[in-house]
Amino acid sequence: MRALWLEDRRISYREDVAEPDPPAGEVVIDVTCAGVCATDLELVRGYYSYTGVLGHEFVGVVARGPAGLVGRRVVGEINAVCHDCPACRAGRSTHCENRTVLGIVGRDGAFAEKLALPAENLHPVPADVPDEVAVFTEPLAAALEILEQVDIHESDRVLVLGAGRLGQLVARVLHRARCELVVAGGHPEKLRLLEREQIRTIDPEELTPASFDVVIECTGHRDGFSTARRAVRPRGTLVMKSTYAGELALDASAIVVDEITLVGSRCGPFGPALRLLADGAIDPRPLIGARFPLHEGVAALRAAERPDVLKVLLEVAAPRSRGE
Amino acid sequence: MRALWLEDRRISYREDVAEPDPPAGEVVIDVTCAGVCATDLELVRGYYSYTGVLGHEFVGVVARGPAGLVGRRVVGEINAVCHDCPACRAGRSTHCENRTVLGIVGRDGAFAEKLALPAENLHPVPADVPDEVAVFTEPLAAALEILEQVDIHESDRVLVLGAGRLGQLVARVLHRARCELVVAGGHPEKLRLLEREQIRTIDPEELTPASFDVVIECTGHRDGFSTARRAVRPRGTLVMKSTYAGELALDASAIVVDEITLVGSRCGPFGPALRLLADGAIDPRPLIGARFPLHEGVAALRAAERPDVLKVLLEVAAPRSRGE
Repeated sequence: MRALWLEDRRISYREDVAEPDPPAGEVVIDVTCAGVCATDLELVRGYYSYTGVLGHEFVGVVARGPAGLVGRRVVGEINAVCHDCPACRAGRSTHCENRTVLGIVGRDGAFAEKLALPAENLHPVPADVPDEVAVFTEPLAAALEILEQVDIHESDRVLVLGAGRLGQLVARVLHRARCELVVAGGHPEKLRLLEREQIRTIDPEELTPASFDVVIECTGHRDGFSTARRAVRPRGTLVMKSTYAGELALDASAIVVDEITLVGSRCGPFGPALRLLADGAIDPRPLIGARFPLHEGVAALRAAERPDVLKVLLEVAAPRSRGE
Repeated sequence: MRALWLEDRRISYREDVAEPDPPAGEVVIDVTCAGVCATDLELVRGYYSYTGVLGHEFVGVVARGPAGLVGRRVVGEINAVCHDCPACRAGRSTHCENRTVLGIVGRDGAFAEKLALPAENLHPVPADVPDEVAVFTEPLAAALEILEQVDIHESDRVLVLGAGRLGQLVARVLHRARCELVVAGGHPEKLRLLEREQIRTIDPEELTPASFDVVIECTGHRDGFSTARRAVRPRGTLVMKSTYAGELALDASAIVVDEITLVGSRCGPFGPALRLLADGAIDPRPLIGARFPLHEGVAALRAAERPDVLKVLLEVAAPRSRGE
């Protein structure tokens, strides 16, 4: 089948990738649309050693699996888990010790004609939610994860640092939480997208030190941390959303003295994300910066690197079914 | 007066240090006993730039101040605060933006015949609590701060990493919280002190990775962090207690992927600490490793550097009053 293949930090478009042939309990999905995420770009940079098909944000139609699922349009949670390790048994299955992760760890991903996932990972997409909206379920869930981890009150001064792909979604989620929100970013056009949603924005240079109760670091690069650290007040919370290759140098004693809480945050709940998209509470379409067919996937990833481009979509196939 | 003076990373015993002459609202205290803390040793190493009298753990007798206080034996909170900055007004006065900190930031400390603190910082010591016990109020409060910041449940597997001065107190506090506690440390004699309290101990080499819900890093040095990080499970909490000079290199992406929470933890509540000491719930006396008169303070700090020595006390003067 056709797919974008990552090997030795090189991404290539190939037409000879083996189709998935999963074990019982897993289904095969015909991918219709996939989204490019900063994690894909970091994987190409070598943030984590992975060989295989890239991609983990997708919408597709079940091609092979239980009768009740075949033909349904679905999105899918990306962690395939064992249900048997201590993490799974403790209810933290996204941290399963034996997990594979779609397009990230030991499981071919979504930048392909077909992918395989456990049936239990799938969420049917309501008929009136277009592919180009549903494809945002995974990153929107990751934004919602913040509210699962940190209590955010209406009186909290909250800073989202970074107005890129993830920052945009995080800002929309926090705007709904009615806190005192401001988003700092460097690209005027990205900030304008937020201002259109009545979300306050600021130039990162103008941030007052120690003036935020909660800071969400979504810049996607290492330098974001020090700006976030300066902005958070003593006893405040700094949520870390960025993954990137290499280590971060941290003044640990200052973290202790200021009693800062750092919270790493990753995958979130698909159900609530899909509901927000389905009822129109969050419309991600203004974030779509470019669309490419699968065979132009290498160019798609290059486009996603550009600081002025937000979400890049790969249109893999026309959907075969509009029903759930 | 006589005092231990820190300047340019050199500690010296001097007899010509000016006596404190504080403004209204502050009292002068005749120090009877002071404790040496890892922070004192790190200040000498240059972890933070400070010139003046060292020391922040003390018991003393009020020599000058309001009539109701003069002659009373007291311990004192170390942050002198403004009550007017945003942090103070938000109820986080230990993070006052204008604070001075006894023997640490802009305020001469306790390794001296006399010190000055705001009257509001003082806590009278019950008559039956000896100096050598009351002097542990400040570090015990710092141990209790963990319970103010992190919910610890009886079913939680909790690791205290480091069986030194602070680790010993943290372990005793957590033992009272009835969680599944284990303390990892390298010195058999320090571990024996814990075992005598029915606290489980382990060699750090034998720790199972990712097996603790909560890890408290009390080693006092940078290397402790990576051991703590390995030991905490995904979505677990790592409490950072150590302060030391220099930066820590952190795999930030792994913190994100494992959704670890890091919590910096510093000064804690004096009232509960003093009560635990007063009712004998925690007896810190087995932790006393050596006693020195003030004029041998340089040797006292050298002794406190030794890995086999726990708390070093400076006996500054015989107490003038045993009453509260």
